[in-house]
Amino acid sequence: VRNQQILMAARPVGLPQPSDFSLVETETPPVNDGEVLLETLYLSVDPYMRGRMSEAKSYAAPMQVGDVMIGGTVARVLESKSPKFTPGDAVEAYTGWQRYAVTPAKGLRKLHRSLPLSTALGVCGMPGLTAYFGLLDVCQPKAGETLVVSGAAGAVGSCVGQIGKILGCRVVGVAGTDDKVAWLTNDLGFDAAFNYRRHPEPFKTLKEHCPGGIDCYFDNVGGPLTDAVFGLINANARIAICGQISQYNNTKPELGPRLLSTVLVRTATVRGFLVFQYLDRAAEGYEKLGAWVKEGKIKYQETIVDGLENAPQAFIGLLQGVNTGKMLVRVSAE
Amino acid sequence: VRNQQILMAARPVGLPQPSDFSLVETETPPVNDGEVLLETLYLSVDPYMRGRMSEAKSYAAPMQVGDVMIGGTVARVLESKSPKFTPGDAVEAYTGWQRYAVTPAKGLRKLHRSLPLSTALGVCGMPGLTAYFGLLDVCQPKAGETLVVSGAAGAVGSCVGQIGKILGCRVVGVAGTDDKVAWLTNDLGFDAAFNYRRHPEPFKTLKEHCPGGIDCYFDNVGGPLTDAVFGLINANARIAICGQISQYNNTKPELGPRLLSTVLVRTATVRGFLVFQYLDRAAEGYEKLGAWVKEGKIKYQETIVDGLENAPQAFIGLLQGVNTGKMLVRVSAE
Repeated sequence: VRNQQILMAARPVGLPQPSDFSLVETETPPVNDGEVLLETLYLSVDPYMRGRMSEAKSYAAPMQVGDVMIGGTVARVLESKSPKFTPGDAVEAYTGWQRYAVTPAKGLRKLHRSLPLSTALGVCGMPGLTAYFGLLDVCQPKAGETLVVSGAAGAVGSCVGQIGKILGCRVVGVAGTDDKVAWLTNDLGFDAAFNYRRHPEPFKTLKEHCPGGIDCYFDNVGGPLTDAVFGLINANARIAICGQISQYNNTKPELGPRLLSTVLVRTATVRGFLVFQYLDRAAEGYEKLGAWVKEGKIKYQETIVDGLENAPQAFIGLLQGVNTGKMLVRVSAE
Repeated sequence: VRNQQILMAARPVGLPQPSDFSLVETETPPVNDGEVLLETLYLSVDPYMRGRMSEAKSYAAPMQVGDVMIGGTVARVLESKSPKFTPGDAVEAYTGWQRYAVTPAKGLRKLHRSLPLSTALGVCGMPGLTAYFGLLDVCQPKAGETLVVSGAAGAVGSCVGQIGKILGCRVVGVAGTDDKVAWLTNDLGFDAAFNYRRHPEPFKTLKEHCPGGIDCYFDNVGGPLTDAVFGLINANARIAICGQISQYNNTKPELGPRLLSTVLVRTATVRGFLVFQYLDRAAEGYEKLGAWVKEGKIKYQETIVDGLENAPQAFIGLLQGVNTGKMLVRVSAE
């Protein structure tokens, strides 16, 4: 099959530019035993991809210039040499930014269409699992505690805040536009939210919204907002470091106030986590998230960009915060 | 009884000065039922006291100007209105910088003289418990892992490193004089140690001493050394924040490189802890530490300053790192 792929054409310096990507045409390889040929319906763009485009040592090997951009996808099986799949099946895969892919059937998640397929990349996919395990296992919130979420209108943050409400927390969200703030408080049930771009000194605003201090912080953003949160944490606070999107495009390390004295006097726990640490419990997460979505206890929004060729711009926009909820690229119609 | 007490005469700005303390003469109050009159033999000076002299919000209320300096003591019972103690008993108390004190018998620890009394303020006292629980519960080291200890020649750090060796770790200590370094490697069995004052860029030196990266870090110091450690931590590293002595005399918050992106990509856990969180398990700690000391598996050193009136200078010296092992003031001869 004639394929289209988007490659990393250059390592970005700072915010990625369209010229850091290139679209190429190739042929898909033959389908071997145990493999399937997939047609991408949606591809996911996620903040973590910025890290993979960099050479810095991380939890996964960096991409190399010329590699197909990695990432999660929802796809349709066109051809199967695996007994587990038949043509027409919908699956979640990790085949990256391309129109077609040949991939081992092992590791694909069959999707059952009880929910829209696109949710398998968002609220009922990796972002949802990230929210679920990061909040429950790392933050361990108790009813009545105050939970602050940064990047609160993103795919992960919006889910974190709603799970926090299900668990009985006071939930305060921080986002980057007034529309996002309105969505969080009017539609998702956050107790409070604010637009950090309107509050260059977020400490005061946070303090107003968290009169009892902060017990749990789910951090997607880092930087000055996180500094302000540390100034308000209570004894035995739990801080989940899920992302640091404010730092990903830095060309040199940013300085900030040292936070470890606060960690000490508050006997706080700060833990970085990756959803991959919880893959053995994924079924539990999918089940809970799916049930909550069907019951209307978790709502979600998607920002969908059409066309594989627009994936770079979707990704660049994501890093700038243009999306509300999950950012997706629709590659082919369902 | 005619008493002498050392008060906080002024809140220190930066490094405490002798003028921040005053020595006053008072009378001890009468001994009521359930109380004892104590004669201080040794008093403890510890880095945490610097925090209590500051107004900043912390885990305990700050001292006020005019208060007797707080702290642990080893004392002799002179008079007892408690059935639990008789004159001549030796106890660990928390009666601060004074020659005599009347205090409730409840909360005193009777000392059994199977070890030198002074150890009740060091290796078999709060510093020892701090090392024991901080290392075992927060760092959770496994045999074969690399453990780095800052402030390694202090009362806590020297104990941490030796427990690390008992547990089978590779132990690397960081201290502030060549003599301390020699003590750590020649006498205490540390695998490696270095004098940070001779290594203004500690990253390279740490990397040489930690060829397999760093799994556990027990931090008493903070600052640039800790920044360097973060640059070398392995996946799932555990970092115990016990002290940040490099920061205690700052008159304004110090800036440093942001560390949370590293916490994220290494899925590290950073936890501030206080020994008070483990008081319900103190008996376990005293027993283990006492046994290790008697078996010669944990060695200790004390830096003893004579005379109550010299306590301020002992404390100031402690903050400058003049001590090796536990810093004590001998108030009265045993």
